[in-house]
Amino acid sequence: MAAEGETGVVTAGLLVIGDEILSGRTKDKNIGYIAELLTASGIDLCEVRVVPDEEAEIVAAVNALRKRYTYLFTTGGIGPTHDDITADCVAKAFGVSLAVDPRAVALLLERIPAKDMNEARLRMARVPAGGELVLNPVSKAPGFRLGNVIVMAGIPAVMQGMLDGVLPSLKTGKKLLSETIDAGLREGDIATELGAIAKKHSDTIIGSYPYSTERGFFTRLVVRARDADKLAAAKADIEAMIARLKPSTAVI
Amino acid sequence: MAAEGETGVVTAGLLVIGDEILSGRTKDKNIGYIAELLTASGIDLCEVRVVPDEEAEIVAAVNALRKRYTYLFTTGGIGPTHDDITADCVAKAFGVSLAVDPRAVALLLERIPAKDMNEARLRMARVPAGGELVLNPVSKAPGFRLGNVIVMAGIPAVMQGMLDGVLPSLKTGKKLLSETIDAGLREGDIATELGAIAKKHSDTIIGSYPYSTERGFFTRLVVRARDADKLAAAKADIEAMIARLKPSTAVI
Repeated sequence: MAAEGETGVVTAGLLVIGDEILSGRTKDKNIGYIAELLTASGIDLCEVRVVPDEEAEIVAAVNALRKRYTYLFTTGGIGPTHDDITADCVAKAFGVSLAVDPRAVALLLERIPAKDMNEARLRMARVPAGGELVLNPVSKAPGFRLGNVIVMAGIPAVMQGMLDGVLPSLKTGKKLLSETIDAGLREGDIATELGAIAKKHSDTIIGSYPYSTERGFFTRLVVRARDADKLAAAKADIEAMIARLKPSTAVI
Repeated sequence: MAAEGETGVVTAGLLVIGDEILSGRTKDKNIGYIAELLTASGIDLCEVRVVPDEEAEIVAAVNALRKRYTYLFTTGGIGPTHDDITADCVAKAFGVSLAVDPRAVALLLERIPAKDMNEARLRMARVPAGGELVLNPVSKAPGFRLGNVIVMAGIPAVMQGMLDGVLPSLKTGKKLLSETIDAGLREGDIATELGAIAKKHSDTIIGSYPYSTERGFFTRLVVRARDADKLAAAKADIEAMIARLKPSTAVI
């Protein structure tokens, strides 16, 4: 991946397309996977939206997100059935035409006998004008990239294969480094001092994430920064705070 | 729950607040749970957004979503630490003040010894003017409801307890009924006929959800409708189609 330079930040939005996620029938497994992989790759995931299989909603979300972030990834809606309308919507969002792409047909024919090729399966070969294919190592039917929008399948294994393939071609920024410290204390015991540390180390991002045990809630602190020295300085202050503070008898 | 009437549709948006979801450090478990429970309760979840712990992002999303849907649920950002800014943001979105609420303090004191009460813990008792408490059966620190916005914790067990408590007070619409049919066929084999059935039964929502097996991809069809007769009619047409079609040798 090409680094964006010392201070460059590369951002991304993610659009999850599908009625089945909003009805709860399918539990999304892609958001967490994409979030973790992008973060590890030096791309900051800044926003996720989940929208139904409705053209107006998808077009509006594609246009809102592609303009805000370096990249927009989408998952879902690229199969052969009537509810798969992502390609149509991305073409509409960009104001370009949509047509069957011979390169995509060739890929499909590696997997589908010619006698079984039909109009429905050819829907999976439609790519908006100007789009590049995103390869699918699992079942061949490709996704595509148009401008800064990367269109992927919804099935997790297929999406993961597509993302692996496309990542090396993307710009990346300086990675957000991260350290986790188990405070062994309640959030309410540390919050005031932690707030002061967060203010002092304003080039870092400090988060507090409570977890429950049978003795009540404790918290893990996560410090993030692109600069290792700044990260270490904030971490040292947090560790000194933890060593200094006594646990209270409160449980939260 | 009070039904909205025979044809009334009650909608919801969900706003997931938290850097930890966008970094992939924490895998969200709330979207799927809330989606399933709202659907079962007669509330249609129409959109989900995930945003970071940043005031401008949260305020903009609260205002965008609360105006579009009957209800807006939020998760995350209501603890005592500096990164918990949801109450501040909701107050700002509504243009109202935020203050420590004596009812919320009383609840906190059921769980926190008075000697351990401090400024940080009192942050958890802040409620925007006009807000009603949403009870927390797990750890007492409440959420709140302001207008059509319901603010809940991010920890799944706490969020679930809050949602259980608040649901009976919400309007609900006629439930979207659902039937799932395993087609035993490839999407590409049925897509054309299925599209015609979807067009014919336009008062139903028909989705096709592929799943992979060692013999390739098959698909499950989900028919949804608020009217049981319309659902049954679409389902009958789908079952007749499945009985009529022969599987091809294609694997997708």
